[in-house]
Amino acid sequence: MSNSAYSTATYRLYDDKADFDKKATGIAVGLTVGSWTELPEVAKQQMEKYLGKVVSVDVHDGSGEPGTRYADITIAYPDLNFSRDLPAFLVTVFGKLSMDGRIKLLDVQPSAEFLQALPGPKFGAAGVRDLLGVHDRPLVMSIFKSVIGYDLPNLREQFLQQALGGVDLIKDDEILFENPLSPLEKRVPACIGAASEAEQQTGQKLIYFTNLTGPTYELRDNAKRAVEAGANGLLFNVLAYGFDALAGLAADPDIPVPIAAHPAMAGAMYPSPHYGISAPLLLGKLVRMAGADLSLFPSPYGSVVMPKEENLAVRDALLSDKLPHKKAFPVPSAGIHPGLVPLILKDFGPEVVVNAGGGVHGHPGGAAAGGKAFRQAVDAVLRGTSLEDYAAETGHEELKAAIERWGVRTS
Amino acid sequence: MSNSAYSTATYRLYDDKADFDKKATGIAVGLTVGSWTELPEVAKQQMEKYLGKVVSVDVHDGSGEPGTRYADITIAYPDLNFSRDLPAFLVTVFGKLSMDGRIKLLDVQPSAEFLQALPGPKFGAAGVRDLLGVHDRPLVMSIFKSVIGYDLPNLREQFLQQALGGVDLIKDDEILFENPLSPLEKRVPACIGAASEAEQQTGQKLIYFTNLTGPTYELRDNAKRAVEAGANGLLFNVLAYGFDALAGLAADPDIPVPIAAHPAMAGAMYPSPHYGISAPLLLGKLVRMAGADLSLFPSPYGSVVMPKEENLAVRDALLSDKLPHKKAFPVPSAGIHPGLVPLILKDFGPEVVVNAGGGVHGHPGGAAAGGKAFRQAVDAVLRGTSLEDYAAETGHEELKAAIERWGVRTS
Ligand SMILES: [Mg+2]
Ligand SMILES: [Mg+2]
Repeated sequence: MSNSAYSTATYRLYDDKADFDKKATGIAVGLTVGSWTELPEVAKQQMEKYLGKVVSVDVHDGSGEPGTRYADITIAYPDLNFSRDLPAFLVTVFGKLSMDGRIKLLDVQPSAEFLQALPGPKFGAAGVRDLLGVHDRPLVMSIFKSVIGYDLPNLREQFLQQALGGVDLIKDDEILFENPLSPLEKRVPACIGAASEAEQQTGQKLIYFTNLTGPTYELRDNAKRAVEAGANGLLFNVLAYGFDALAGLAADPDIPVPIAAHPAMAGAMYPSPHYGISAPLLLGKLVRMAGADLSLFPSPYGSVVMPKEENLAVRDALLSDKLPHKKAFPVPSAGIHPGLVPLILKDFGPEVVVNAGGGVHGHPGGAAAGGKAFRQAVDAVLRGTSLEDYAAETGHEELKAAIERWGVRTS
Repeated sequence: MSNSAYSTATYRLYDDKADFDKKATGIAVGLTVGSWTELPEVAKQQMEKYLGKVVSVDVHDGSGEPGTRYADITIAYPDLNFSRDLPAFLVTVFGKLSMDGRIKLLDVQPSAEFLQALPGPKFGAAGVRDLLGVHDRPLVMSIFKSVIGYDLPNLREQFLQQALGGVDLIKDDEILFENPLSPLEKRVPACIGAASEAEQQTGQKLIYFTNLTGPTYELRDNAKRAVEAGANGLLFNVLAYGFDALAGLAADPDIPVPIAAHPAMAGAMYPSPHYGISAPLLLGKLVRMAGADLSLFPSPYGSVVMPKEENLAVRDALLSDKLPHKKAFPVPSAGIHPGLVPLILKDFGPEVVVNAGGGVHGHPGGAAAGGKAFRQAVDAVLRGTSLEDYAAETGHEELKAAIERWGVRTS
């Protein structure tokens, strides 16, 4: 363990009157050695390597109106102070501090050494592409329409129709838990069987992200059961279990499938300007460091909860070259229909998963037609053709019907 | 599994214009069967048992000013829809929904059947009292002053001084992780040895809550290692690991010691009026259902982050007769000195842990004197004497010095 490694955290603190420099020093001392100025000199020499440091304090005085003055403060924490896992890191940088007034954790920059200890994605975006054999276009994912209360034949048929549309990825609903109608060990073979059946027609591979659920200490076993049953992907409600539960799955060589992280419960933490953890950190950097191959988050296209700027920052965190880990696919979700595809690709670039539920199942021709419409929309953009022109061509009737239904949105 | 059990969740939604009744129906359908009105009659009959129900919608129109209109909405979810674990329950009631505008989860009322599946505290407040043999007064806990960077002899001496003051409980700092200076397997025997040494003088038992840390899937093993090393209590950063990680510890018969839940990271979720999970639910009901014997939370006496009203609601959730589980000790923390004891006991009643760090270590006579001052303050209140009068009596010099230092606060 090097004595000189530091990991940083950046916070935004709102306060109309605070001495932010003093506040920053209080954090750097209080969350590390506890007390400093009253220590004898000899103790200071011994303790200095454990002491946090104030990196920067940027005060924004605001308009003078109450509630507009804030500071962005960056603190460096010695790696010596925490073990090499995310709970230790997060409790160090935002444990007690999270309760100390109007304070939001904006970003963290763990040391190279700490990053090394985190698994990151097992496959990453490139690995997922390799599994599918698709390297030349954005991927298309679809979601089951309704799952609760439906039996296996119904789910299998839903799956088959989605697969016949040519989507690359199909995911369980995140609220589908172990249940008598569609237990994991029967659901997986049923869906994977439907995938093979569709492949006969489409010639296309497909990853099925089955929902990994159950008690925390049984997750790894459940994941292995899923894999034994044929699952080639896992969906995981990471925030209900903590980032480290994901890291333990990602680091396990006996779980050789990609993991899609679902943002369930994230809205309890990212939307407030005053409290919580920023979306790019929560659903971007942390999810990636912990080992998700794909990260779902609310798109800016539906009923807006996450502004586009924040969405793009999530994407950047997932795809940035600055982390040593593999890249994770951004999956902006909710409110997606084929007419949005040009905008999605413009906003997110080529390394993105176009993910739809209603935009697949709500297609006038059914789910298979819905998937085809998405694939045609992607093809149109890659060819540099407008959706309207592409839809007018023979063979692109599904896109035509989708546009008639939902229109095209270009901004 | 009964088909007729429902668990409810209550939300506060802020919206200046929304049709809250429609919103409530959207939640009840969207988070359960997915779609309803368009289902054929025969399907409706089959699906009805999976359908959520709107229990109540209370609209508060506010002042007419933007941002003041809200509704409290209660939805009943069929237990059929989720497995018997907290991640499944929380993802069902506040997964995707957490990201759907200005919405805060205020409370949940799981069915009797679901509650039965949760462990609750292994000892509870009464069991902790039995372990200590103390049934006639509130308990006193103290926290290490500084831990990071200090070696075992130092920590042992800190522990000894605290124990000599007659405190009942001593806890690790939540930011003390596995480290070369004070590894768990050496720290526990050192502190438990100091506890025995102090007991020779005080005649008093003591529980030491050692910080349980490390990777999620190693927590149970680490807990057992701690117990084997002599630990008679565990501190746990529950929110960094998720409630189910705690439930798995509480349910494990091979971890036969009480658990104190630390609120690290809670400030990312409870303080906003618009987002997150209410403090009484997060640090009261959920922590208790998951199995903490003690729950720490920010007191209303320090730099206020949690208002007193909310504090008392946390206490009520921990001590309520309405849950089938054992009661958990409320531990209001931060800013506590001996002069606050009458107010704490007035506010919280007798079933409370008086928990102090600076109020013990900052005593002019040192930590042992600090602990004695707290015990004397508790005795004064039980005798119905004012702190000032009690402090004036011979043998209560420690309380006298504490009052001179911090004063007495009565409201
Ligand atoms: Mg869903
Ligand atoms: Mg502390």
